[in-house]
Amino acid sequence: MTDHVLVKDVPQYVEKEITLRGWVYNIRKSGKIWFLIFRDGTNWIQCVIVRNEVSEDVFEMKNTLTQESSIEIRGVVKSAPRQAFGYEILVKDIKIFQIAESYPIALKEHGIEFLLDNRHLWLRSHKPHAILTIRSEVEKACRDFFDERDFVLVDSPMFTPNAAEGTTTLFETDYFGRKAYLTQSGQLYSEAAIMAFHKTYCFGPCFRAEKSKTRRHLTEFWMIEPEMAFYDIFDTMDLAEEFVSYLVQRVLKKCQNQLTFLKRDFNRLEAIVPPFPRITYDEAVEILKKKGFNFTWGEDFGAPHETAISEDFDKPIMIWKWPAEAKAFYMKRDPEDERYVLGVDMIAPEGYGEIIGGSQREEDINKLLARLKKENLPEEVFNWFLDIRRYGSVPHAGFGLGLERTLQWICGVHHIRECIPWPRTMVRLNP
Amino acid sequence: MTDHVLVKDVPQYVEKEITLRGWVYNIRKSGKIWFLIFRDGTNWIQCVIVRNEVSEDVFEMKNTLTQESSIEIRGVVKSAPRQAFGYEILVKDIKIFQIAESYPIALKEHGIEFLLDNRHLWLRSHKPHAILTIRSEVEKACRDFFDERDFVLVDSPMFTPNAAEGTTTLFETDYFGRKAYLTQSGQLYSEAAIMAFHKTYCFGPCFRAEKSKTRRHLTEFWMIEPEMAFYDIFDTMDLAEEFVSYLVQRVLKKCQNQLTFLKRDFNRLEAIVPPFPRITYDEAVEILKKKGFNFTWGEDFGAPHETAISEDFDKPIMIWKWPAEAKAFYMKRDPEDERYVLGVDMIAPEGYGEIIGGSQREEDINKLLARLKKENLPEEVFNWFLDIRRYGSVPHAGFGLGLERTLQWICGVHHIRECIPWPRTMVRLNP
Repeated sequence: MTDHVLVKDVPQYVEKEITLRGWVYNIRKSGKIWFLIFRDGTNWIQCVIVRNEVSEDVFEMKNTLTQESSIEIRGVVKSAPRQAFGYEILVKDIKIFQIAESYPIALKEHGIEFLLDNRHLWLRSHKPHAILTIRSEVEKACRDFFDERDFVLVDSPMFTPNAAEGTTTLFETDYFGRKAYLTQSGQLYSEAAIMAFHKTYCFGPCFRAEKSKTRRHLTEFWMIEPEMAFYDIFDTMDLAEEFVSYLVQRVLKKCQNQLTFLKRDFNRLEAIVPPFPRITYDEAVEILKKKGFNFTWGEDFGAPHETAISEDFDKPIMIWKWPAEAKAFYMKRDPEDERYVLGVDMIAPEGYGEIIGGSQREEDINKLLARLKKENLPEEVFNWFLDIRRYGSVPHAGFGLGLERTLQWICGVHHIRECIPWPRTMVRLNP
Repeated sequence: MTDHVLVKDVPQYVEKEITLRGWVYNIRKSGKIWFLIFRDGTNWIQCVIVRNEVSEDVFEMKNTLTQESSIEIRGVVKSAPRQAFGYEILVKDIKIFQIAESYPIALKEHGIEFLLDNRHLWLRSHKPHAILTIRSEVEKACRDFFDERDFVLVDSPMFTPNAAEGTTTLFETDYFGRKAYLTQSGQLYSEAAIMAFHKTYCFGPCFRAEKSKTRRHLTEFWMIEPEMAFYDIFDTMDLAEEFVSYLVQRVLKKCQNQLTFLKRDFNRLEAIVPPFPRITYDEAVEILKKKGFNFTWGEDFGAPHETAISEDFDKPIMIWKWPAEAKAFYMKRDPEDERYVLGVDMIAPEGYGEIIGGSQREEDINKLLARLKKENLPEEVFNWFLDIRRYGSVPHAGFGLGLERTLQWICGVHHIRECIPWPRTMVRLNP
């Protein structure tokens, strides 16, 4: 039964008779004619039912078809320049699969908790459809970008054996009598993989059990993490800005309708081309001080700091050269000043906050060992990871881009939970 | 420092001087000349060091460079028809990043447990490199296939709120004071998603806490699951055979070197083109009886049964029309005989077993409710899922393909643990 045309392909069938299968979105009656807004998941289209073009039964369906009833429509495609889509269907026949019960999501405003409780139905509405269509395109663009640049996809594991950095933000499970933890990042595994494949990426779910209810936290999110042998921090910043620009330009090209529906400012996105501004952590602290923040050198930036630092820039900004104590043990010391590490955060414009964290990695085993000791991290847990520095250590670097945070910015969406099909937060595990 | 050439691209630089960066694979000495087999993760190449072409220091590196030492090589690309790769490097200079400690994986046979304990290093060897290169290509082919056919990627959640079918094979975690379970399949979520997007797929990790130590079980594996509105069981079998053929033909085209290294029989893979044989469950039982199996109608097939049924066929075979009690509650009853459901399993040839499970889904809410009751499944848990049948129910279908099982067959690999970068089994959670 795959002989039907998708609404998105209707423009190829002008003046031809076709069959569509999908759902009733809305009905508008007007005497001897009625209009059915039809959706099939690929787009929405107006269908016109004229009394003397259809049987009596079909014409009377104006009184029986409910919102979200499933139907098959046979009709002729007509050019309709005044319609948003540009085409409409002159209906010849309608067959009913099922008359829907009274649909809980009427064509009006609902509270967000109600909509999230009904996420399995809400997906059919315009806004989730637009955001998740963009998500699908961005995921494809992520893979295309790295596939085109000789990166090999090497999936990192979800189960990890050790809670090296403490269990407070880790989800734990019983694993046949021992404990396993859900991954927060594939980076350490990717560092091993590039010694086998040169440049790799992993792209999958990550988990954080953070007790945080902000508009930027999910317990389950997707992250793409490229890792590159023989890259230094500058190569990495070059790659990161090229990558983010690539994603934004792809969405501008492929998802114009969705961006328009979301009322996103095209000019702001068109400006996202390399080079992005690069400032050091110290320069960022200077900006904060000038803006009146009472900020202690050595601390990480919070959301208000990120917003304040980035608000003078139209593009994402890269903050690099961080105090060592503010960043993870695996980051490479700056050879010019050992108080710093060669880490970089990318902050999206318009207050959307951090979308990328990355660094050149420490390739010197002795510096790594000293760092582990200083931070009271158990050396035996990292023994396999230290092997990477024992057997052919090389300069290398990488970063991770949070998919949903990037989407939040590109789509201009207030809360991150709308940027994943089935959001999981501290307070939400359903449906 | 990204100015180096990748070994795979060396053929573009014949008679030109280039820089390579990577690792020592092996060294062979022969008086006034020595040979260095070099790898950079994209391929292996022979480098020739001639006494009067390099400095004394570089020539003496034959005595200091160890296996897996990291180096930079400058040299001229020479055509070398007698080499497997067809090219070699006449070395001008070598710089050392690091002299590797004595590498645990020597160029000889090791026990499998030793290799798995050292998976982070073993990845650098030929066989894992070949298998995981194919994996990367198959993952890309999976996405390309569905992207080219109007499917939208809709990621399913990893955390699920209910253990509807019992907790025996589920991993459980504390989720802020309540229980959450790791997903075994995204299907139920995809059934909701197709009502919003028409055709969708999800592709991510799945988890099974099965106490099974066979060569075909992982606790963490990747599955791609397409789901299609307005597809019946026959459309689904058409799509499944087209998909599997597409994957195999892509690997044949793109991964010839890897298949050759793995000594895979090309003829066997070239035969994997539609149509695939289709037999009903009853016909499969007949085959088993003729082969002397003592088999009870209504049971599921085990590995020996699958091998016996499939061994007479050169292609994957699709077994469809199953006894309802052997399959899950969501499968659609065969309207011609209600004892059966419209499910289908695809069994790979050569004894590699099931790679696909799928079905047309039951769209009648009353039949679903009856089935839930009969199997003592809690209706309230499935209430959101039943909504799909309340609001515009349509005929639909889908299937799931296990990535690692498919790779096991395509690569001709005995044990599934070699088909994922970081295998997790009942007895293995490291590294």
